[in-house]
Amino acid sequence: MSTPMNNLGIVVRNIQRADAGAIARLAKFGVATVHEAMGRVGLMKPYMRPVYPGAAVCGPAVTVLAQPGDNWMLHVAAEQLQEGDVLVVACTTDNTDGMFGDLLATSFRARGAKGIVIDAGVRDLKDLTAMQFPTFARAVSAKGTVKETLGSVNIPVVCAGALVHPGDVVVADDDGVVIVPREVVAMAADAAEARENNEGAKRKKLAAGELGLDMYSMREKLARAGLRYVD
Amino acid sequence: MSTPMNNLGIVVRNIQRADAGAIARLAKFGVATVHEAMGRVGLMKPYMRPVYPGAAVCGPAVTVLAQPGDNWMLHVAAEQLQEGDVLVVACTTDNTDGMFGDLLATSFRARGAKGIVIDAGVRDLKDLTAMQFPTFARAVSAKGTVKETLGSVNIPVVCAGALVHPGDVVVADDDGVVIVPREVVAMAADAAEARENNEGAKRKKLAAGELGLDMYSMREKLARAGLRYVD
Amino acid sequence: MSTPMNNLGIVVRNIQRADAGAIARLAKFGVATVHEAMGRVGLMKPYMRPVYPGAAVCGPAVTVLAQPGDNWMLHVAAEQLQEGDVLVVACTTDNTDGMFGDLLATSFRARGAKGIVIDAGVRDLKDLTAMQFPTFARAVSAKGTVKETLGSVNIPVVCAGALVHPGDVVVADDDGVVIVPREVVAMAADAAEARENNEGAKRKKLAAGELGLDMYSMREKLARAGLRYVD
Amino acid sequence: MSTPMNNLGIVVRNIQRADAGAIARLAKFGVATVHEAMGRVGLMKPYMRPVYPGAAVCGPAVTVLAQPGDNWMLHVAAEQLQEGDVLVVACTTDNTDGMFGDLLATSFRARGAKGIVIDAGVRDLKDLTAMQFPTFARAVSAKGTVKETLGSVNIPVVCAGALVHPGDVVVADDDGVVIVPREVVAMAADAAEARENNEGAKRKKLAAGELGLDMYSMREKLARAGLRYVD
Amino acid sequence: MSTPMNNLGIVVRNIQRADAGAIARLAKFGVATVHEAMGRVGLMKPYMRPVYPGAAVCGPAVTVLAQPGDNWMLHVAAEQLQEGDVLVVACTTDNTDGMFGDLLATSFRARGAKGIVIDAGVRDLKDLTAMQFPTFARAVSAKGTVKETLGSVNIPVVCAGALVHPGDVVVADDDGVVIVPREVVAMAADAAEARENNEGAKRKKLAAGELGLDMYSMREKLARAGLRYVD
Amino acid sequence: MSTPMNNLGIVVRNIQRADAGAIARLAKFGVATVHEAMGRVGLMKPYMRPVYPGAAVCGPAVTVLAQPGDNWMLHVAAEQLQEGDVLVVACTTDNTDGMFGDLLATSFRARGAKGIVIDAGVRDLKDLTAMQFPTFARAVSAKGTVKETLGSVNIPVVCAGALVHPGDVVVADDDGVVIVPREVVAMAADAAEARENNEGAKRKKLAAGELGLDMYSMREKLARAGLRYVD
Repeated sequence: MSTPMNNLGIVVRNIQRADAGAIARLAKFGVATVHEAMGRVGLMKPYMRPVYPGAAVCGPAVTVLAQPGDNWMLHVAAEQLQEGDVLVVACTTDNTDGMFGDLLATSFRARGAKGIVIDAGVRDLKDLTAMQFPTFARAVSAKGTVKETLGSVNIPVVCAGALVHPGDVVVADDDGVVIVPREVVAMAADAAEARENNEGAKRKKLAAGELGLDMYSMREKLARAGLRYVD
Repeated sequence: MSTPMNNLGIVVRNIQRADAGAIARLAKFGVATVHEAMGRVGLMKPYMRPVYPGAAVCGPAVTVLAQPGDNWMLHVAAEQLQEGDVLVVACTTDNTDGMFGDLLATSFRARGAKGIVIDAGVRDLKDLTAMQFPTFARAVSAKGTVKETLGSVNIPVVCAGALVHPGDVVVADDDGVVIVPREVVAMAADAAEARENNEGAKRKKLAAGELGLDMYSMREKLARAGLRYVD
Repeated sequence: MSTPMNNLGIVVRNIQRADAGAIARLAKFGVATVHEAMGRVGLMKPYMRPVYPGAAVCGPAVTVLAQPGDNWMLHVAAEQLQEGDVLVVACTTDNTDGMFGDLLATSFRARGAKGIVIDAGVRDLKDLTAMQFPTFARAVSAKGTVKETLGSVNIPVVCAGALVHPGDVVVADDDGVVIVPREVVAMAADAAEARENNEGAKRKKLAAGELGLDMYSMREKLARAGLRYVD
Repeated sequence: MSTPMNNLGIVVRNIQRADAGAIARLAKFGVATVHEAMGRVGLMKPYMRPVYPGAAVCGPAVTVLAQPGDNWMLHVAAEQLQEGDVLVVACTTDNTDGMFGDLLATSFRARGAKGIVIDAGVRDLKDLTAMQFPTFARAVSAKGTVKETLGSVNIPVVCAGALVHPGDVVVADDDGVVIVPREVVAMAADAAEARENNEGAKRKKLAAGELGLDMYSMREKLARAGLRYVD
Repeated sequence: MSTPMNNLGIVVRNIQRADAGAIARLAKFGVATVHEAMGRVGLMKPYMRPVYPGAAVCGPAVTVLAQPGDNWMLHVAAEQLQEGDVLVVACTTDNTDGMFGDLLATSFRARGAKGIVIDAGVRDLKDLTAMQFPTFARAVSAKGTVKETLGSVNIPVVCAGALVHPGDVVVADDDGVVIVPREVVAMAADAAEARENNEGAKRKKLAAGELGLDMYSMREKLARAGLRYVD
Repeated sequence: MSTPMNNLGIVVRNIQRADAGAIARLAKFGVATVHEAMGRVGLMKPYMRPVYPGAAVCGPAVTVLAQPGDNWMLHVAAEQLQEGDVLVVACTTDNTDGMFGDLLATSFRARGAKGIVIDAGVRDLKDLTAMQFPTFARAVSAKGTVKETLGSVNIPVVCAGALVHPGDVVVADDDGVVIVPREVVAMAADAAEARENNEGAKRKKLAAGELGLDMYSMREKLARAGLRYVD
């Protein structure tokens, strides 16, 4: 096991993934809904974007801590993948080099991976789009990388500002990426479902012209806060 | 009325919108043309982008000054909308939180709004695109917002570097967003028309291989400025 | 000829373009492949992006050094274009103004240009997309520019971090932009071809589930570097 | 007079400056205090920083709208200065070129100026520091500028996100820059004074260990908002 | 205790701080040394800078998760401070508002705090410098904040890219900020001491002109990697 | 010799440095003066800043092309230094890691170096300041680096946007960094001297209240450009 003093250069083989049934339930909801259902925590920073429109994925995280300009650990991670996994790649420093492209996507898909979230650059954009391999990245860059310096696989990482433990669930779509800790996936799915059921009714009322001011009973609180209407 | 010392916490109900006929004339032109017609002023900074390709809108501004991480004033603004309005949302500080999404878009459209320009983040990108609700923003972010702190509605705001008075006309398309002050909308439409008429002839000549150097008679001025041709 | 003390205000008329046959061979390869084939040099920074998806171009560079907010030299450059050229526009300082739009694109195409790479802003995005004129830029901005200050045409420039000599070959696609010096275009095409031939076999193996760890014989080197597997 | 359609290329000679007595009273307070006294409006973005520690200035604004890479209008503005003025330089686009240095500082000081706030770059940092000429800028850059394109002097400008009318009061120190509209300078000074008187007592209590929680009676509101204490 | 589903709105009162003796030993070393001693992990991103030169602090973290534009939780945190603590303030989204200034510094110091690391803005720079209260921030901004929205105190936070648990040790100086997990402070101090002892000898040799190439025996590895010397 | 196809992994031992006498003459002038004297070319981007106030250096460049997160080539470069050299370190991609600190500064100084310009991060800020070793960098960061991947020494590099050949002269001070090509150092010194002589007279006139408008005879050109004075 890694300790905080030696968490570079290790690969954790046995990680506990979130419950597959709970993941399947969560997968029906979008990032915004899950983020709200989680109490508004766990969101990655907004620079983490899909590299093609419509990319979306949900699955347990296999985490990678990479070094700048070096994608060696992605090859190491391939062996740790199971069906349905999503790679989450953090880097020890801000870096946009093209650590991931169509060859690795082919390999990861063959090993069961459903997508990748990478706090670095990717390349072969055309191929990734043709493959429809859900890819979320901070940049597109053709910059090649080396295989010289050890990072780690399946240790806790901070990726785009979010803490990710191996086995946590990654939910990613056009709105960004949110991380759901392994222990609360079922709860998050429940909360998301409740929220979404609630939204349909709201949408109908708003579409009919009802104001949020009335629907959410905001007028009194606004007045108490001192809002003044003038002509 | 607001004074410079108390312009937070107020809603101005009666604003004077630009003339509808003039707006209709202006709506035929793109942002680049209108910006040039205006004498190259009024443009927002280029980080203000459409959230889906092809988004375009033209209409009088209902302005909002929001607080970071707080979309309360957007609900307040909904009640002030009239048919054809465009919301312009400024924020008291740089913020990318997802202040606007499909529920507010549904509400705004039901109240007559034709689009939104927001110096913050938006979410529910897929829904906004499906709705084809023209949305211009500085970021896409699923980050949820609260409803706790007063801002204002229909006061002059600075949005993405441009000064916007309520009732000014917003012209937005793939090239960005330009603001036309209420008093000069007809003049701007005239100037845009003149400019566009002029462009057709230019385009034909250029397509036929004529050089801008000759068409715009630049050679003498270049020589005077000291341009040297060498082999 | 320009010297380092007076390289503003000159236009070099006779430049030596890379060999057309070699360019044609190189044009079959993507940016990532060419960048690797070149030994991982010559790449522009990743902020240089196509302004519409799928834009791609390959051809000899006609270089421009422009001043901020001023597109005068682009008109001067038009006269220096030959069939197949790609404009590479650098700027004396960081600037996002819309120096290039549909009129210049029409002119450049009429004079033989196949595309443009510009370290500034462009406008008329809709038209450029409709024209399918391959355009790579740091920003989209409607901001108009003047024609007042001399720059130069066909001198060596640094564009988005890459050194470009007139006549060097520009290769640009969804992955970014790479510059191949005139003297090594044939060698680069050879190396790209060798690389690409090699990739097909690799892709097949990876698709069949073989690990990069084994295919590239990484296990021993990883062990030597100290990688530890834990449970 | 300028209209929104022709506000480039004009110099307004007669501007109404804020009352000198009120300015003198306001000058005793720092930016943070004045910003709070103003109801938290009027602040420039935090990238606007003093170029040497301890720079501070307070005075009526003479405004300049400059073009990128061009400091011609600063020379024009020199003639419009009166004793005690502070130059506020906006630019039609983001630009960091060194528009201002020791020669202009010498000229401006000779004409009565007390300082400058410039949304661009400055140079001759050593000299500006030796002169102790209060300078607030977005960057330090030796990049030279031309004198070719008209901007304007003494029109309303947006500088670092803040709207500035000629004659408004600029308050600038280590905490940034805030703009006080001409009409409310006396009111702002009153409010600042009240605020500052109040702060002394608070500081004493806090220094003695009293908690803000108690001093500001926050505990009940926190409980109502749902704050939970756990062990 | 907080769970991942409800970690907003809670204050954890009893945290376990790192051992005081170990902290005292660690306090003798700089950030670069500790970061190396830790195996090159735990460093905050380089935008986190001291607000005055020479600021330095070492102590156990009391963590705060704040909302953008809102410093309410800093007041709540004051009550949880013990002698020697260092506040670490994260924010739910990127924000530069001035959440911290001289009044809070006075209060925190009175309650025992030795410094603050805040992923937001601070103000009253002159006073903070005069007080010599070690302050590390992402920005200086006079922008005022409200007290309306709950965050949390003493939960794990991600601050400037680093994971911080309450009670972990913060080491901050001119080189940045590094976090040492509570459990390994003594080990980190040992490793830092070993490293520093080692550096003295190295420095002497290097000062005498010995090359790192020889001192670290790099020549053979360089040759193996393919380094070529040419004339 | 390196060719464009294999410029990684080489060290050029014999470079031709600019003439020592010419360098000595140039060293009397500041960056802004030299940049102007050069015809406004050769300046690095303004993010390249001295890490302590007052740092200044002038000397011939020994260039380094480093890989992100890797300072191996700096050790290789040490052996190539001669008395008076200035290191110029470029990186194959944007990187802020702390590649340079007090040990390397000690080594470089012992080998004759007078300063360093590095397009990456540096650490040991306190020591570098105490040593008064002129250091210009894009960031301060304690982030440690490895020694695993080859770059090159004494090949042409692009550093912070400027092209630098080995032996070119680096002039750096509080205003930034400018590169003077080896062949024109004497000419640049002449031009700088002429410019500086000229500035003394100008400064006197401006200090006496004369306007640049008159001193530079700008009024006619302004009128021709269409400047209007209004009241």
